[in-house]
Amino acid sequence: MNTLKRRTALQASGAYLPTQEGSAPHLHAVRPALHAGEHAIDNPACVIGPGQRCEHALVDSELNCRLSDYERIVRGRFSGIVDVLKEISALQHERDFAERAQRLAQERLGYALPQQLLDDAWVSGLDMKALHTHCIFQSFKVCVDRTDADQSLWLNRMALTPEFLAACGYHTVGTSLPAPNGRLQGLLPFVFRMAPNRNVYLKAYAGAMFDVKADMVDWGHREIERLSGGIPGGESQNYLKIAVYHFSSSHSHEQGCAFHASNDKQAVESAKQRLDELRIAIERTYGVGAAPDILLVGLDTDVDALRIHLPDADGDVNPYRYVDTAELYRETVGLTAQAARAHIAQRVDEAQNMDGWAQGRGVMIPGMRQLVLALAEANLSQIEYVIHHHQGRYTVLGHDEEFICAGEATQYVQMRNKYYFAHLDTVEEGAADVDVGIKIFTGLNVRHGLSVPVLVHFYYSSRVPGSRERALNRAKQVKAAIEARYPALVARELLTCRMALSDRFDTERCVFVDEAVADSGH
Amino acid sequence: MNTLKRRTALQASGAYLPTQEGSAPHLHAVRPALHAGEHAIDNPACVIGPGQRCEHALVDSELNCRLSDYERIVRGRFSGIVDVLKEISALQHERDFAERAQRLAQERLGYALPQQLLDDAWVSGLDMKALHTHCIFQSFKVCVDRTDADQSLWLNRMALTPEFLAACGYHTVGTSLPAPNGRLQGLLPFVFRMAPNRNVYLKAYAGAMFDVKADMVDWGHREIERLSGGIPGGESQNYLKIAVYHFSSSHSHEQGCAFHASNDKQAVESAKQRLDELRIAIERTYGVGAAPDILLVGLDTDVDALRIHLPDADGDVNPYRYVDTAELYRETVGLTAQAARAHIAQRVDEAQNMDGWAQGRGVMIPGMRQLVLALAEANLSQIEYVIHHHQGRYTVLGHDEEFICAGEATQYVQMRNKYYFAHLDTVEEGAADVDVGIKIFTGLNVRHGLSVPVLVHFYYSSRVPGSRERALNRAKQVKAAIEARYPALVARELLTCRMALSDRFDTERCVFVDEAVADSGH
Repeated sequence: MNTLKRRTALQASGAYLPTQEGSAPHLHAVRPALHAGEHAIDNPACVIGPGQRCEHALVDSELNCRLSDYERIVRGRFSGIVDVLKEISALQHERDFAERAQRLAQERLGYALPQQLLDDAWVSGLDMKALHTHCIFQSFKVCVDRTDADQSLWLNRMALTPEFLAACGYHTVGTSLPAPNGRLQGLLPFVFRMAPNRNVYLKAYAGAMFDVKADMVDWGHREIERLSGGIPGGESQNYLKIAVYHFSSSHSHEQGCAFHASNDKQAVESAKQRLDELRIAIERTYGVGAAPDILLVGLDTDVDALRIHLPDADGDVNPYRYVDTAELYRETVGLTAQAARAHIAQRVDEAQNMDGWAQGRGVMIPGMRQLVLALAEANLSQIEYVIHHHQGRYTVLGHDEEFICAGEATQYVQMRNKYYFAHLDTVEEGAADVDVGIKIFTGLNVRHGLSVPVLVHFYYSSRVPGSRERALNRAKQVKAAIEARYPALVARELLTCRMALSDRFDTERCVFVDEAVADSGH
Repeated sequence: MNTLKRRTALQASGAYLPTQEGSAPHLHAVRPALHAGEHAIDNPACVIGPGQRCEHALVDSELNCRLSDYERIVRGRFSGIVDVLKEISALQHERDFAERAQRLAQERLGYALPQQLLDDAWVSGLDMKALHTHCIFQSFKVCVDRTDADQSLWLNRMALTPEFLAACGYHTVGTSLPAPNGRLQGLLPFVFRMAPNRNVYLKAYAGAMFDVKADMVDWGHREIERLSGGIPGGESQNYLKIAVYHFSSSHSHEQGCAFHASNDKQAVESAKQRLDELRIAIERTYGVGAAPDILLVGLDTDVDALRIHLPDADGDVNPYRYVDTAELYRETVGLTAQAARAHIAQRVDEAQNMDGWAQGRGVMIPGMRQLVLALAEANLSQIEYVIHHHQGRYTVLGHDEEFICAGEATQYVQMRNKYYFAHLDTVEEGAADVDVGIKIFTGLNVRHGLSVPVLVHFYYSSRVPGSRERALNRAKQVKAAIEARYPALVARELLTCRMALSDRFDTERCVFVDEAVADSGH
């Protein structure tokens, strides 16, 4: 489909407006909006004529500003570390060094440094490596502790609220990532504009270890609650399982999903297969009709645009029948909100009917269509977020994480590339993912003389007796196994492993174990 | 309670009969019955006067004979191995050696030996170690393949049928063992006289790794089936979780549960705690009333007698309120069936009311009482089985297993001490149990120059797509991890690891992987 032609046709139809509907014409000046030609931006969505702006009527630009604030605040807690440490390093031969260093850290980073490290600096110099690792963990801890305040910036403004999902017929939305990839961590609030909570969650699995069984357990937990009346309105609602694969529009064979050797076709088919397997497993076990609804979504990690694959009447998805939100953005930027919505709906329905598909397989159920339309629209905001707040596309397309998280990912920091994540219960089964992480950090940290910070994190349930103790035992076991796997790094103090636990019911959030009072009654 | 006094009182009451009710007086002669004084047997249940027999009116001695046949058949498949191999060894310099060896193996063991091993014998002698390991695995495979025929001897004569359990109010009975112990493997048909099936099953866990979560998943699976109407009569039924701890009446500090350092008090309290934890976890997650019923049972592994702990009205169990079936046997041997049943019921009710307990906590629900009475009565048959078919108590009280099974236990061979079992998903978490197994087999095999046979076995579900492939990957990973853990044994060919998979829905039963056609469409 030739986009320029399409837009010209829409302009001729009178639906194309030169300014945004409902916005004061001069408000643009205070926004970081881009005019085509002003900056050359390389974004497939933002293909506009001279004098036009990438400002879409359906985009929540206030929300984008808030998300940008959130991102700046969170990243700022990490980005200042090196500068502060350099300044401190320069002070290390001063008389009142320790005191000045602590003051600097408190002022600029918001936390103290280990006094011992500062006091011992006169002997053989300041241990910058240890300070750096300390700061990475400490900055992450600050993020965790400020989760509620930080997220309050945007949490209530998300487009896809739990109430909306319920109205579409879904009591739970479980989203799976096929691979441990830091670039996908902000998915829910940023890319999907979905408020994460206990029943709207993201899980990352390594491809080889993705287990239908684990998904069946998650589904089963909610199914018991639903069947026993524990979900208001649940009798007419279903569980929605979303599988996300990812690709890179700019480097399709370099920055895609490493597990699939950046083979996009394989990634989409493998994600589809897993969704199908889950449905088949549940239907064969619990009967026809028991299976959750599924949705297959592709993410272009360069620009955060989506390919939303459209289920048919039976809920089956197809790797080749989808809408691309970058195209939708391009085709509807400059339209009124109403005209843009109508166009998106039309394109979705066209895609459903592609090659007469709908005749044979039927169209998706109304609740799913409602959700797909809302998701496509919500994602337009993220496309514009990348255009306005990341200069058109992410400058760092590869890995740029601050640390490795092994075990279970925390949900406190919802942001791209904060940490590399290896989902595992044991290193024995997750070794390949940890190896990839260590390789990445060999480039990011070790070759600059910095240690690789590894956070071993597990959740427990304060409702389940003994759960915390078991989670701690598991963390200790994984920590020991990681240290045993990389003895050369450990010996050179180039790998620093710490443990943290979180309660699913929030009595503790990512509490570093050596800081917690043991047996404190949790 | 002084047992002799009790029995004297019963005799005085006229309920005590000199011969068995309903049995011809001379039938005794053809049974392997013991008269006190004939053989001195050391069994706490069989304390009888001169001329009396340990033949209890409530014992199913026909079933005992059948179980004895089953045991002889299964053990016979292993016990002949060494003799056959010795004979074969003696032939190895004969001209037609290979042919004669194969004939001998086929005749006496029922399967062939690896031709290559026989053909190469002339070079550096027959590899007896390899032959022995081959035979152990092969004999086990024969047992698996003959499961249905073998079990048909006794399966339909079990006292506690699924129908009976349903009448007591239980749609499922999940029994957990706290430790990987070969002595507890015949528990369901022998000790409990319960027909094992998909919903009446036994699981062994190592103490440290026992996970309430895994039990919640098992419970949750059946709860979804029940709530969605998949269990006939399920609306008024519950799940029953039984925890079994074990002890040795003869060697209370040597042959008890190794995990609890043979500390019986710790074993019982730890089993009780786990049951409580499961109930609390389910109630806190799914609401009051959701929890399964529980039963705590102690097993004396010398004589297979039970301590059945009696739940109160709330279903809570107590470590100190139980009936001991060895005592019940002793007190009721020689009574009529009716009088014995009445006595057992009376003793159960006395125990319920012990120290006024029932006033405060109430008595167990009728269905549970019915089950406890039936279990106590059924176990009398096993007590007599040990008296008559194992000369009063097991001669081998310690470990005497044929091989190590790591992963998931098979349920095809329901027999004491056939294999040492280490329940694990990864060696990283199950290392302690595997180490114990290797230590045991260092005594049993290695010090005699024999290899330790290790079978890595996992179940998959043919209803879950991809499940077999994942189970196979897991088996390969565990096999590699075991071999990596004991390099010295592997180098000396003193550890031989093989892999097998079973389908929970019986399309494959313990199929050795290198024998299966890969990718055969399962």
